[in-house]
Amino acid sequence: MSNLGFSHLRLVNPYDVAFREAKSAVGAGHVLEAAGEFGSVSEAVADCSLVIGTTAAGPRELHHPVRRLEYGARLIRKHPGTSPVAVLFGSEKYGLSNDDMSHCHWLMRVPTREGHRSMNLGQSVAVCLYELIRDSRVAVREPARLRAAASVELERVTELLIGMLGCSGYVNPRTRTSTENKVRRLVRRLELSARDAEVWLGMLRQIRWKMDHNSGEDQHQERA
Amino acid sequence: MSNLGFSHLRLVNPYDVAFREAKSAVGAGHVLEAAGEFGSVSEAVADCSLVIGTTAAGPRELHHPVRRLEYGARLIRKHPGTSPVAVLFGSEKYGLSNDDMSHCHWLMRVPTREGHRSMNLGQSVAVCLYELIRDSRVAVREPARLRAAASVELERVTELLIGMLGCSGYVNPRTRTSTENKVRRLVRRLELSARDAEVWLGMLRQIRWKMDHNSGEDQHQERA
Repeated sequence: MSNLGFSHLRLVNPYDVAFREAKSAVGAGHVLEAAGEFGSVSEAVADCSLVIGTTAAGPRELHHPVRRLEYGARLIRKHPGTSPVAVLFGSEKYGLSNDDMSHCHWLMRVPTREGHRSMNLGQSVAVCLYELIRDSRVAVREPARLRAAASVELERVTELLIGMLGCSGYVNPRTRTSTENKVRRLVRRLELSARDAEVWLGMLRQIRWKMDHNSGEDQHQERA
Repeated sequence: MSNLGFSHLRLVNPYDVAFREAKSAVGAGHVLEAAGEFGSVSEAVADCSLVIGTTAAGPRELHHPVRRLEYGARLIRKHPGTSPVAVLFGSEKYGLSNDDMSHCHWLMRVPTREGHRSMNLGQSVAVCLYELIRDSRVAVREPARLRAAASVELERVTELLIGMLGCSGYVNPRTRTSTENKVRRLVRRLELSARDAEVWLGMLRQIRWKMDHNSGEDQHQERA
């Protein structure tokens, strides 16, 4: 709850020992400290204008409409913010009873696979709350990223590489232009950021220096 | 993992005692039984063409691009299905090391709030896998729901209700048409399913019967 920004926890008939001795995760103390205790679901949701139950069961076993989380969360987000919305979770062992569910406007389920529907309570809460705060705009376009390298920067890498390949004997003079274009495309496909292009340039220059330096030595040795 | 349909678990240097004695959740035995053990991250992801690390840290502390889960999962889903994709989680206590992360193409984070970033491991895995199997089409339009009541069915409810209101003295004869239209609109706003319209009809008919029956008795008593 605390990770995902939810702070109002209400407990119905919590097992006192477990609840009072519960140690909150680092950073989540405020949620447990402010948690309200109620004697019944009815009292716990009294001020809520929308009450959503959660279930692992299929629609045929239930008396309520059951919505997949993706759609249910959308309806919850559209609910006017003037009064609280409750998302009701049953106990780890038994889930919500029919009596609990009768206080709900509708039910929501995590789209677990048919063969393994029932989920761990903490994971189920995390997934439901995540869907509620999930940002669909982020899914469509990537947020601000590093500045991509400009063509002039990519061309510096390309030319350096072509020079090194030429020097190393990789380039067949008859197909030189075709090879150069191949390298040019190869470098573009790297989709380098400006920062990484700079790093590559530095590395390649160093290697180039070593190539020149070594070949000098080799010639020197040959001459000797 | 089992709930959300993922079956290939790979462990890097698991704590043997904990791992061998781990009791899987009901229905998830196959995941633990088939889990592979590896001596290093490098070996564990050797056959993967895309390796995504998970982190609670912000981009400034890291040497990798960090993508929000919503966008990261979209990139993962777009990855060609011909070779495995690994989603790498660190230990509950320390998360991924810089060394672990160096095997990753990029990193992904659950959009937790600034003040409480670090998440429980199991919940983080559940949320990440949920985003991967989440169906965005479901979020936009509700899946097949109960057949909505047709106008003819709604009109039966409306007429029965108008009759009962008339009989009860609710309707002022001078504003009869306006009241009837109000009731008609009221019934339409209920957005009844065909099944619920049937249930309402049954209940209202019963009440109507009781009204007629009672008023008969009253008259009888008055006459007596």
